[in-house]
Amino acid sequence: MNITILGAATTKFGELWNLSPRDLAREVVENVLNEAGIEANKIQAVFVGNMLSSSLGGQDHLGAFFTQELKLRVSAMKIEGACASGGLAIHAGVMAVSSGLYETVLVLGVEKMTDHKPEEVAQALMGAGSDMEREAGTTFPALYALMARAHMEKYGTTEEDLAAVAVKNHFHGSLNSQAQFTNTITTEQVLQSPVIASPLKLLDCSPITDGAAAVILSTKHEGMYQTVRPEARSTKLPRVNIIASSVATNTLGVSEREDLTTIQAAVDASYKAYQMAGVTPKDIDVAEVHDCFTIAEIMAMEDLGFFQKGKAAQAIREGKTRLGSGRLVVNTSGGLKASGHPVGATGVKQIVEIYQQLKGIAGKKQVRGAKTGLTHNVGGSGATAVVHILKSL
Amino acid sequence: MNITILGAATTKFGELWNLSPRDLAREVVENVLNEAGIEANKIQAVFVGNMLSSSLGGQDHLGAFFTQELKLRVSAMKIEGACASGGLAIHAGVMAVSSGLYETVLVLGVEKMTDHKPEEVAQALMGAGSDMEREAGTTFPALYALMARAHMEKYGTTEEDLAAVAVKNHFHGSLNSQAQFTNTITTEQVLQSPVIASPLKLLDCSPITDGAAAVILSTKHEGMYQTVRPEARSTKLPRVNIIASSVATNTLGVSEREDLTTIQAAVDASYKAYQMAGVTPKDIDVAEVHDCFTIAEIMAMEDLGFFQKGKAAQAIREGKTRLGSGRLVVNTSGGLKASGHPVGATGVKQIVEIYQQLKGIAGKKQVRGAKTGLTHNVGGSGATAVVHILKSL
Repeated sequence: MNITILGAATTKFGELWNLSPRDLAREVVENVLNEAGIEANKIQAVFVGNMLSSSLGGQDHLGAFFTQELKLRVSAMKIEGACASGGLAIHAGVMAVSSGLYETVLVLGVEKMTDHKPEEVAQALMGAGSDMEREAGTTFPALYALMARAHMEKYGTTEEDLAAVAVKNHFHGSLNSQAQFTNTITTEQVLQSPVIASPLKLLDCSPITDGAAAVILSTKHEGMYQTVRPEARSTKLPRVNIIASSVATNTLGVSEREDLTTIQAAVDASYKAYQMAGVTPKDIDVAEVHDCFTIAEIMAMEDLGFFQKGKAAQAIREGKTRLGSGRLVVNTSGGLKASGHPVGATGVKQIVEIYQQLKGIAGKKQVRGAKTGLTHNVGGSGATAVVHILKSL
Repeated sequence: MNITILGAATTKFGELWNLSPRDLAREVVENVLNEAGIEANKIQAVFVGNMLSSSLGGQDHLGAFFTQELKLRVSAMKIEGACASGGLAIHAGVMAVSSGLYETVLVLGVEKMTDHKPEEVAQALMGAGSDMEREAGTTFPALYALMARAHMEKYGTTEEDLAAVAVKNHFHGSLNSQAQFTNTITTEQVLQSPVIASPLKLLDCSPITDGAAAVILSTKHEGMYQTVRPEARSTKLPRVNIIASSVATNTLGVSEREDLTTIQAAVDASYKAYQMAGVTPKDIDVAEVHDCFTIAEIMAMEDLGFFQKGKAAQAIREGKTRLGSGRLVVNTSGGLKASGHPVGATGVKQIVEIYQQLKGIAGKKQVRGAKTGLTHNVGGSGATAVVHILKSL
């Protein structure tokens, strides 16, 4: 697989009450076309990652919704897989250009969540879960709390270990001007924040967020297009390619799984991705992982093969995945925790962040010398996992 | 493009109050695997076409929802584009196997509509339309009524012409044991049925339907798999391939279009599909077109190039697209009108019907000697159009 990312961009993430989904899409697509240095007429298809526009907004048909707004009359569809919708839309874009049916496509992740009451959002999000668990009254914090408790029991993981994930990701978020939260926090602040679903506290949880992210994928590379701003191409930045794209699924319900301390879909998807790319976890310099709750990042570090089972928490607490001190830096964007989690946009934003890292344009959050990166996007409580591996050439 | 359809099946369409989406999926997948003669473990990815599970059922994450039910742990995603969701899911399946990422995939269209009040369904369906037209209080019958009036004004199309589409499609439906309506109707019955949105009457409108359809697509053909029932492969039936797959979009709103008598997205998608397949409208022996309302079939006949603009109505009334009398037979399944319209399943069912026709296993509704077929699936009031061309080898 050899697919070039011609451009990648996000909007500011946050509570964007004055912006509609259309506004977000227009802004991010203008930026991504500018970054790619190509005109809109090069886009042959649009893949929209979104989860909640139907249940919260009563708006379906988002493919045509956005192609109309963008004044494109091209092929378009919405891709949905709960909080993995963005990663799945990237996977669809990868299939599209690999198939030869399209040469250059736009993947657009958009979510507008803050116009609704938090209870409505929590209810709508449970559309991603098992109906049995939903009927039992659980919400996602409760399901991840079960996983956290199991992880604590089995591996001695502590509440301080969980807090360390949030502290690191807020530090990274403080370096990302597009992040929802750019403030740093301390372990004490996490531990003293209100309990949401014990042992998870408010600052263990990713927020409700509005935002959009966009990526242009192509079988051509930048130099092969007559660009609208050739000066952008004179900088001799490395090309960034997607070299693996993989999806796996598992049970919707947490209660139906054998082991609560592992997201098996992430294990399966990453195994396939490493094989496809011909790399091992040791080759990854920078990763964006799905830290919807702090425990999720600890489990991801283990499920993706970066640390042995039960060993990730200590490594994170020791700063081994923190910018400036680690061999593998994780969630330089701030992750879902600090950068924010507009669900359908998250998986696309992860690709944007790794693209910027491998291109060497990540600014204050740049991981020096990063050559190979990974993204890990999860739907629901782990029923869908999408893994991408990117490389600079 | 050279993709083999290994198997294709539908459930009975209708008011299936005793069956859940899970039941429908289990039944249709068992049937399609049996038809293909392969075991479930050959399926490497699942693409789910569905529109309303979120807005009506509060259930998202349908990819993992169905892979769990089918005991598959493979890649899965939901594809949505209003009433074109099924056709788009086929397009995604085509991309998937063409890309080389997957060899054999399942496309599953499912919709459960009759568990809700008709007003709720009508409201949810408007999620496919423009927000402006929705806020103005229009529903889909009203939008297609506008198109019918414009077509009458411009080309002299009559209410009898519209009725002729319904009469033909009910005749075809009477030969299809899986159809929602298997009764024949007369022109007088159509004309005397209650007015829904003048000039469209009840019997000009497709119904609200539950149902599922499934197709297995592969870059391998049947003989290349060790089949579970080799006797199925001994019958020397022709292989059926998809030779073109094309999508186009246009404005969500009818009021934003230059010409109400044409669905431009259908013109654009079919133009691309004919080019891709290297065929012309004259080469098509059998077609399934999106007759959500009778006027839609008349417009489709013209937009797809089968008849000159303004000439289709007379041809249909003269029986030129009716089984037994025509060179090109249209909607042998009964179309959306008689076979039923479970929105996310419709585009998949169209492929099933053409597969059966080209395989020569369509039973009483068989078009003799059919070699090349076309499907035309439309989303909303024409904002998305998906065209596939199939050929027997």
